[in-house]
Amino acid sequence: MSQKPLRALGRAADEMRPLRFTRRYTRHAEGSALVELGETWVLCTASLEEKVPNFLRGTNRGWLTAEYSMLPRATIRRNQRSNSSRSIEIQRLIGRSLRSAVNLDALKGHTVLIDCDVLQADGGTRTAAINGAYLALHDAMDMAVRERVIEENPLHGSVAAVSVGICSAQFLLDLDYQEDSGAEADINVVMNDVGHFIELQGTAEGHAFRRQELDVLLDWAERGIQYIIGRQRKALES
Amino acid sequence: MSQKPLRALGRAADEMRPLRFTRRYTRHAEGSALVELGETWVLCTASLEEKVPNFLRGTNRGWLTAEYSMLPRATIRRNQRSNSSRSIEIQRLIGRSLRSAVNLDALKGHTVLIDCDVLQADGGTRTAAINGAYLALHDAMDMAVRERVIEENPLHGSVAAVSVGICSAQFLLDLDYQEDSGAEADINVVMNDVGHFIELQGTAEGHAFRRQELDVLLDWAERGIQYIIGRQRKALES
Amino acid sequence: MSQKPLRALGRAADEMRPLRFTRRYTRHAEGSALVELGETWVLCTASLEEKVPNFLRGTNRGWLTAEYSMLPRATIRRNQRSNSSRSIEIQRLIGRSLRSAVNLDALKGHTVLIDCDVLQADGGTRTAAINGAYLALHDAMDMAVRERVIEENPLHGSVAAVSVGICSAQFLLDLDYQEDSGAEADINVVMNDVGHFIELQGTAEGHAFRRQELDVLLDWAERGIQYIIGRQRKALES
Amino acid sequence: MSQKPLRALGRAADEMRPLRFTRRYTRHAEGSALVELGETWVLCTASLEEKVPNFLRGTNRGWLTAEYSMLPRATIRRNQRSNSSRSIEIQRLIGRSLRSAVNLDALKGHTVLIDCDVLQADGGTRTAAINGAYLALHDAMDMAVRERVIEENPLHGSVAAVSVGICSAQFLLDLDYQEDSGAEADINVVMNDVGHFIELQGTAEGHAFRRQELDVLLDWAERGIQYIIGRQRKALES
Amino acid sequence: MSQKPLRALGRAADEMRPLRFTRRYTRHAEGSALVELGETWVLCTASLEEKVPNFLRGTNRGWLTAEYSMLPRATIRRNQRSNSSRSIEIQRLIGRSLRSAVNLDALKGHTVLIDCDVLQADGGTRTAAINGAYLALHDAMDMAVRERVIEENPLHGSVAAVSVGICSAQFLLDLDYQEDSGAEADINVVMNDVGHFIELQGTAEGHAFRRQELDVLLDWAERGIQYIIGRQRKALES
Amino acid sequence: MSQKPLRALGRAADEMRPLRFTRRYTRHAEGSALVELGETWVLCTASLEEKVPNFLRGTNRGWLTAEYSMLPRATIRRNQRSNSSRSIEIQRLIGRSLRSAVNLDALKGHTVLIDCDVLQADGGTRTAAINGAYLALHDAMDMAVRERVIEENPLHGSVAAVSVGICSAQFLLDLDYQEDSGAEADINVVMNDVGHFIELQGTAEGHAFRRQELDVLLDWAERGIQYIIGRQRKALES
Repeated sequence: MSQKPLRALGRAADEMRPLRFTRRYTRHAEGSALVELGETWVLCTASLEEKVPNFLRGTNRGWLTAEYSMLPRATIRRNQRSNSSRSIEIQRLIGRSLRSAVNLDALKGHTVLIDCDVLQADGGTRTAAINGAYLALHDAMDMAVRERVIEENPLHGSVAAVSVGICSAQFLLDLDYQEDSGAEADINVVMNDVGHFIELQGTAEGHAFRRQELDVLLDWAERGIQYIIGRQRKALES
Repeated sequence: MSQKPLRALGRAADEMRPLRFTRRYTRHAEGSALVELGETWVLCTASLEEKVPNFLRGTNRGWLTAEYSMLPRATIRRNQRSNSSRSIEIQRLIGRSLRSAVNLDALKGHTVLIDCDVLQADGGTRTAAINGAYLALHDAMDMAVRERVIEENPLHGSVAAVSVGICSAQFLLDLDYQEDSGAEADINVVMNDVGHFIELQGTAEGHAFRRQELDVLLDWAERGIQYIIGRQRKALES
Repeated sequence: MSQKPLRALGRAADEMRPLRFTRRYTRHAEGSALVELGETWVLCTASLEEKVPNFLRGTNRGWLTAEYSMLPRATIRRNQRSNSSRSIEIQRLIGRSLRSAVNLDALKGHTVLIDCDVLQADGGTRTAAINGAYLALHDAMDMAVRERVIEENPLHGSVAAVSVGICSAQFLLDLDYQEDSGAEADINVVMNDVGHFIELQGTAEGHAFRRQELDVLLDWAERGIQYIIGRQRKALES
Repeated sequence: MSQKPLRALGRAADEMRPLRFTRRYTRHAEGSALVELGETWVLCTASLEEKVPNFLRGTNRGWLTAEYSMLPRATIRRNQRSNSSRSIEIQRLIGRSLRSAVNLDALKGHTVLIDCDVLQADGGTRTAAINGAYLALHDAMDMAVRERVIEENPLHGSVAAVSVGICSAQFLLDLDYQEDSGAEADINVVMNDVGHFIELQGTAEGHAFRRQELDVLLDWAERGIQYIIGRQRKALES
Repeated sequence: MSQKPLRALGRAADEMRPLRFTRRYTRHAEGSALVELGETWVLCTASLEEKVPNFLRGTNRGWLTAEYSMLPRATIRRNQRSNSSRSIEIQRLIGRSLRSAVNLDALKGHTVLIDCDVLQADGGTRTAAINGAYLALHDAMDMAVRERVIEENPLHGSVAAVSVGICSAQFLLDLDYQEDSGAEADINVVMNDVGHFIELQGTAEGHAFRRQELDVLLDWAERGIQYIIGRQRKALES
Repeated sequence: MSQKPLRALGRAADEMRPLRFTRRYTRHAEGSALVELGETWVLCTASLEEKVPNFLRGTNRGWLTAEYSMLPRATIRRNQRSNSSRSIEIQRLIGRSLRSAVNLDALKGHTVLIDCDVLQADGGTRTAAINGAYLALHDAMDMAVRERVIEENPLHGSVAAVSVGICSAQFLLDLDYQEDSGAEADINVVMNDVGHFIELQGTAEGHAFRRQELDVLLDWAERGIQYIIGRQRKALES
């Protein structure tokens, strides 16, 4: 499989787009972060509320849930403001991914609501959302402990996500919209900071992918995620 | 009525909050602008589509419609992502205000969709939205003429909006959230660039306002709008 | 500006349409009134329920809210039975207007639900609705005190509404449907019985209106409202 | 089974409540009638539109459909403005009943929309609605022929409806709300002007009814319907 | 009226289709039954939940409610998965029919939820559903008493349903889809095990039916229901 | 990792539950199959309609879409009949999986609608649905070619799905409900008949899984899918 650099802005096949996190982007949320992954921009907030869903009533546990939405004109063509089935699938992915890093018992009757709103889309919105939402969640948990809303910080470990795919018989890391539209296979990988899998969502478009191809793609994803985790750490130090 | 400066950041009673427009904020829309009015931030886009609502089918006219929404955590407490009746009232106001500056005949079978999404709210979101949406509309119309989608620029004149109110028996220009919450009277004024009224929406909260009070408030609004129009012009020159 | 009488039924420019109130029109509601303003007929009821919206739970206050709807064939062409965005805007106006005359503290845990259903429409349905709803509210509050549901009558002062506008460069009071459709400017004014403003909703259709025009229109509105308040008083005496 | 008169206003067991029809009650609909059956008031309109439902596209036939709704405070306790499952059941009954009197072929691509809105309810709203809707339909068909919208009058025969029931072991004709609430059995009968059945909807509440009881109830219903048809004829003569 | 056998599979005019009940068809429900009436198959389940609708809060009573739905491709042409108005009418019929056999006081704070899902439709789905739902209800009540969820069995008597109609001037028992589509009159009859009426729903399609025709149809229905009750009893013995 | 057989019915860790396909289960659909995977039963139908979604209008292509739903009492506790976000996620998976085996160009303006309705659930409903839906699709395509609705059979290759997971530190093939509820990791794998991946959806619940664990699970999944494909082939031969 050839790997000549034909990507926008001369990006190498295994190179991420420029990634920038801005913590505390908005002021009202307990945690908020703007993530810019190339031309994909997602505003992530984490809100803490003293309530739990019905199925947890009467227990002492907490919950985390996520909502994902695109502004109507985040995309090349305008979309209607409705909760599309695609959005529902994505927000369930975000919710499961972040819950994997949270000790729900320590939330003691509180719910974290993650909101990921795509201001501008150029592929990879769900992985960008997970990466930014982790920072918003981190800051919200810090504030909750600092202000004694909860006693113990429920966060154990961190979460990051990246997409890999095959496009014109070439392996690619972090696909932009044009690459994603033409991809033959597309895998979204969510991992924690010790390199274990939290979510793995692979889809063949056009032609099914082989086990050996999967193996290469997972290697690339692992390296991409290590890079992202490094950037998240740096953002948390500032 | 006393007018001592008791406002946040030492603002005078008849002083606007810092106002900043960023044109072409996002890349996909035909026109887009971020407006920052103090801590109120609204992302406005204008999309041009070749279609008209049912009641215009078969004519050669066009239409302009607006949608207004807040991100769930744009506010101090998180709101649900639903089309609230407040949002519906506001988006109708934005639509009527901008239509007043557009020659619908010149749109010839096209609809302009204005989207105003509040990223952060601190009072005055509807007036900020109108001010920013005008810029997005302006740029979309320019592009449409440049790319020969329509022949003649449908825009005649400009539109700007401001709020005035009475708070603790004091006249105030451009109320922030805290002032708005406690206001006894609150008027949103939309004017064109020759100083005539396009929309006037006054509401008494607590105690009804007198004709003389209205007269003062309208004077203040007029001056505020002149200032905003100046800033819009400057943004369009850049 | 000329003021020659070209109106239906030889009505003068500053003349209201025939206005008739029928109190206790239906029997089940705590208060009910049919208002006939020319060919515009609105059935208004006031219902008192022992409950409050969520945001008042735990307080000892009450609330007033309004719903506005048209029967499908109240209009020249049949409309669908849906809660249109126009209806939502109007019912919010009705609710705010009547709340201004009510001491919510005295409602002590009760909600007044105002229902305004347009049986036949010929322009001015929202102002007719406010005028009739005030009578329904008045009778409901009287009954509530009489039957000791609440101790103190929460009603302080009265509320009335009228429309004024400019049509073919002529000032007009109380526009009917045909006039309203062609109006260049249209202002709905809600005032209390001491002549102060409760709501002011002006909209330019076609061409923006000047400050001097606004001044004349508000004078006309004031006189129209004085007339309506007189008729409301008379209805309450019967 | 005893038949002592214990009904409101001294009504006999086999006596209808006072029945009044007001044709052309509202002005915009092609046909409209207010029906007052004691304290049950229903406003019925018939609208003619040049369109057909999807399943008739491409044919030359027409259709008739009905909607039924109660104003929120038509009832002793206020109901929410929603399309309840009870309303759906009733509007289907009204639609089927009136369709039985209409030659759908003669409607040639038009749909009749019947709207029955209950202004005040005291039992028997569905039968009152059918009786009034027939008059509105009659007038709409007359106008359609007169104005040459359709060539041939699609109406063949007339339709009337009444309720009968068993209450405290007594047969009753035309039950009011209080009687209906306590009825052991309740039958709504729709017939045409030659005394044949169009709809028959019997429901046992509490205890099931015998064949002999059904026979008596159907005799009573037949006599009630003859009376109503006479009143409809008289209304059509005026 | 002639009665020559022209029905599918040589069925006589007064002959039911093959009827088969399979109790305990699925494993999770408190009661479940598959009913096969010729090519009409309905899966009925009865679920017992410890809750009551709002209007029974605070009483010690229980409730029974029913839902009816068709799988999208149970029919010749695929239907959308929506709660059609036809479904709503039918589920209300099922609910009323079964409630007539239940002592709601004995349910003491519990609700029985009957679900009737049509796997394959060939006419008579509502009557098949009632016949099968009775068995599911019976088994659920037995289990509830056995497991001491409720003390006393609330079931008194049994319920069965059948359709009769007139098709090409011929009386027919238990109409299949083709017969039902062409029927001039169609009556659904629900009776209890002592032969009294619980529900009676007759509809004329095309031409209204006479009292004498009704009498014959009810005789046929009575015999059909006796047959069904016999089959239900046999199913309960196994 | 130990692999002692502790599963229901003495099943080995790498053993599938009994799998049974019944083709042509219902009669109206172009293709239908009941799949029984242990106590999980799914009724799958394939309907062919001459229409395409909006985004394909004007092309000569076709489409395939899927709907997935559970009967309310397919589960241990009754669920409401609503399109849950879980259902939406699953029906998107089913649709993508089957589309991978279909040449959409050959569908020429037709849409295949796959309906998967779970009659009884015991874990693995989405994989069972895919396995059964493939058979329904196969038969529908055969019929379409046979009846000359389309010229060329659009099906290329077959599709099968299985779940694998880790439960109490044990690898498991084809998890039932109890196992799935307690699983630490759970992967749904969809493959074609040459052993390539079509979909891969892995989720960690509780603790994240390692790359080596993923490798073992994918080996197990591959063997499970080979078994299922064999059973599908056998069913197609009958």
